[in-house]
Amino acid sequence: MERFAPTERTTLKRLPKRGEYDRERVYAILDEAFICHVGFVVDDRPVVIPTGYGRLADVLYIHGSAASRMLRTLAEAIDVCVTVTLIDGLVLARSAFHHSFNYRSVVVFGKARLVTGAAEKMAALRAFTEHVIPERWDDVREPNESELKATTVLALPLTEASAKIRTGPPIDDDEDHALPVWAGVLPLRLATGEPVNDEQLQSGITVPRYVREYRRTKHDQK
Amino acid sequence: MERFAPTERTTLKRLPKRGEYDRERVYAILDEAFICHVGFVVDDRPVVIPTGYGRLADVLYIHGSAASRMLRTLAEAIDVCVTVTLIDGLVLARSAFHHSFNYRSVVVFGKARLVTGAAEKMAALRAFTEHVIPERWDDVREPNESELKATTVLALPLTEASAKIRTGPPIDDDEDHALPVWAGVLPLRLATGEPVNDEQLQSGITVPRYVREYRRTKHDQK
Repeated sequence: MERFAPTERTTLKRLPKRGEYDRERVYAILDEAFICHVGFVVDDRPVVIPTGYGRLADVLYIHGSAASRMLRTLAEAIDVCVTVTLIDGLVLARSAFHHSFNYRSVVVFGKARLVTGAAEKMAALRAFTEHVIPERWDDVREPNESELKATTVLALPLTEASAKIRTGPPIDDDEDHALPVWAGVLPLRLATGEPVNDEQLQSGITVPRYVREYRRTKHDQK
Repeated sequence: MERFAPTERTTLKRLPKRGEYDRERVYAILDEAFICHVGFVVDDRPVVIPTGYGRLADVLYIHGSAASRMLRTLAEAIDVCVTVTLIDGLVLARSAFHHSFNYRSVVVFGKARLVTGAAEKMAALRAFTEHVIPERWDDVREPNESELKATTVLALPLTEASAKIRTGPPIDDDEDHALPVWAGVLPLRLATGEPVNDEQLQSGITVPRYVREYRRTKHDQK
């Protein structure tokens, strides 16, 4: 199974067992989440901005307004760090010290490239929408020429990446097992509420199945 | 009501209506979430790492192993950007272009300071645990001296911060309202699963109420 080659930046120095370089498992995390935190440097100082993303093969795509400062900055092929985090549970130990989270996170390092070709741009936008909500793209009006022009799409090659994963129960010190304290894991997940119809919805239009039954866990790696 | 003074970095250039500088509203977001993404610069390049946090008054605390590269780096009072994001829903418009997320995010800029005083360190760790899961601290064994020594706590003053918020329905182009497409909002929230007892749990210990009834939305600003 193909693996990312660990680099200085993606090698876990502490807790190396939590490191994961398997490309398929890293992609499973990227495919389950849909919000990333993009870090870049402006005037020698860090900036971290949340945004959505999509993935096609070994490329991660982000997009936004052509007027966005972040996208204009990143389009200059500066170094970027894209981090994706899924929180799976609270790990409640008998001591404060051993409390933890169960989580799956991915860190990607690289330089983004501006997507200029019309075909790749449209494919990336489709991938983005289908990533956030599968089956949506074919239902909606595609971007027209002026919308495409107003949208900047950036491609980040998935070449330097790694995941970090914690699963399982709390790990208490032996002597703490005697304490009269509940310990265990409280699982956490993303849940949906009832879909809210737009007020201007035409009569007779019902909530699509892909909205009613929306869930991310089909992407789950387990 | 007290406000953060907008700075060059925290002023929204586009969509200024989404900007929020009211300190109480910014804190409501920080109090509902519990994972932040910490951005910093290493060798002129950005690094973004997810971690938990707590808040006491106008200070945000993060902590971790004294052996952590991130914490050792940040303890040198370098510039940091801490970003917190809550995703409230998918905003499904009739055109791909007008799709969006409902979200509440906070960006904090500053320099972290190493917490050295024993009292502030313990207070910060308590704030951290109580932030993630209220009522837990009093149930568990407090950190002992060697655990405190193995833990680095950093304090980030909340002086340069702002929130960005999107709420409400999709905003479609007028002519798209005639399209036979469902539009609206799919609300998203963090949900809990059934608590999982630790295998070594002593008999007779039941799941505490603060675990069974765990929810973040009591912090909700609405």
